[in-house]
Amino acid sequence: MSLSVSLTAIPGIPDIRDGDDLAAIIGDRLDAADLGLRHGDILCVAQKVFSKAEGCIIPLDSVTPSDEALRYAEELNKDARKVEVVLRESTRVVRSFRRPDQNEGTMICEHRLGFISANAAVDESNFGEESAVMVLPPDPDASCDALRAALHARFGAEIGVVMTDTFGRPWRLGQVNVAIGLSKVPATIREQGNTDAWGRPLQVTEPALADEIAAASGLVVRKDGKTPAVLLRGLDWTPAESRGADILRKKQEDMFR
Amino acid sequence: MSLSVSLTAIPGIPDIRDGDDLAAIIGDRLDAADLGLRHGDILCVAQKVFSKAEGCIIPLDSVTPSDEALRYAEELNKDARKVEVVLRESTRVVRSFRRPDQNEGTMICEHRLGFISANAAVDESNFGEESAVMVLPPDPDASCDALRAALHARFGAEIGVVMTDTFGRPWRLGQVNVAIGLSKVPATIREQGNTDAWGRPLQVTEPALADEIAAASGLVVRKDGKTPAVLLRGLDWTPAESRGADILRKKQEDMFR
Repeated sequence: MSLSVSLTAIPGIPDIRDGDDLAAIIGDRLDAADLGLRHGDILCVAQKVFSKAEGCIIPLDSVTPSDEALRYAEELNKDARKVEVVLRESTRVVRSFRRPDQNEGTMICEHRLGFISANAAVDESNFGEESAVMVLPPDPDASCDALRAALHARFGAEIGVVMTDTFGRPWRLGQVNVAIGLSKVPATIREQGNTDAWGRPLQVTEPALADEIAAASGLVVRKDGKTPAVLLRGLDWTPAESRGADILRKKQEDMFR
Repeated sequence: MSLSVSLTAIPGIPDIRDGDDLAAIIGDRLDAADLGLRHGDILCVAQKVFSKAEGCIIPLDSVTPSDEALRYAEELNKDARKVEVVLRESTRVVRSFRRPDQNEGTMICEHRLGFISANAAVDESNFGEESAVMVLPPDPDASCDALRAALHARFGAEIGVVMTDTFGRPWRLGQVNVAIGLSKVPATIREQGNTDAWGRPLQVTEPALADEIAAASGLVVRKDGKTPAVLLRGLDWTPAESRGADILRKKQEDMFR
């Protein structure tokens, strides 16, 4: 039972560039802030940081839109080249719409990695290039594994890593961070079969631990603040071999596809 | 900019009963744990605690199911009296289903308070009575206001209060805590018009602060642990007159009703 945890934005992380050694940069900032890494720490790192380090930036000049992209672009008042990138990142467009108050419409897509989000998580802001878009890393779990292994080698601590992205939700306004890649952090905790504090069997309860962690990291990260990495310390958790896709409902269990 | 926040489960909160003075109980536990309350603290308290203190428990013996309840009960293999309570708490059933692996089906409802959740947040577990169900407090914002005012009177600190409940989500497995009642805590933070760290205007970004706080509280609350109240300390935030309903998308903005 965790009684107290802390979330700390790791200070001083510079703008990341293609080819940067994330583990070295984050490790140096952890040392500089006298935080280090301890057994059981969990690092939450924004997708943008991984995408920049892995060069997942697509110049729009290099993109030729398909007929399908041209159709969506006209319907939604979007740049057809951006739509083309969204379609390439997606296995399916779940819904598309443009409300009267929207300049550009929205495409709700099933991403190649399985999750459903707006515009297939293709990002146009916050990476300093006007005529390019950013896509997710090819394998977020592998990116998390590599960061975890390198930091383990440096600090000797058994830690977990969560890659976060910022998603909107049906029914509820605003965005929260969710987990899209995991290393060692359990996607969910199965509490079925436990009893509650009054001895009665719990109904199906499966806290989405990785998403709780991702959402919590949002409390100390603000987009305009260059604080893309957060250290969660003090959580009582058991490492698992979860992958980001473990957080996704199977199609047949999901009534909202 | 918050660089570090802490989340602490307030220890020793007893089982709450109808008529209990929540502010006195929580205040005593805060003092006993040498936590107290400071300016800017936010208390996250589980819905169950408020519902118990406010007597929101309905003995099933007192419920006569309607024809509609009987129909759902048969289709979903549910107790018709429980279904009746769900229907009374709801303005609309959005979807109902029973998957082959489910003993009892699920009703996704629009609650009278406006949010969409499973079984209209009617709870059968974790309150120690076999033949009764628990419903949400009549006015969660008012419940939060009353708790905040009483704790302000005792500690003199300007604080915020969030009432949390545990919801499933479309597309993603497991549950996270969300905010269903607010006192002084902003529902969301509007970042439109800001620029990102590289000077480019941010696209529409509106972090759902109250839901981030609620989700974070789940990290130190476990259902079987009797830790229904969490103290968030260190967050940099500005009080607002938000209400729980401010977190809900308007119908015309929501493509998933």
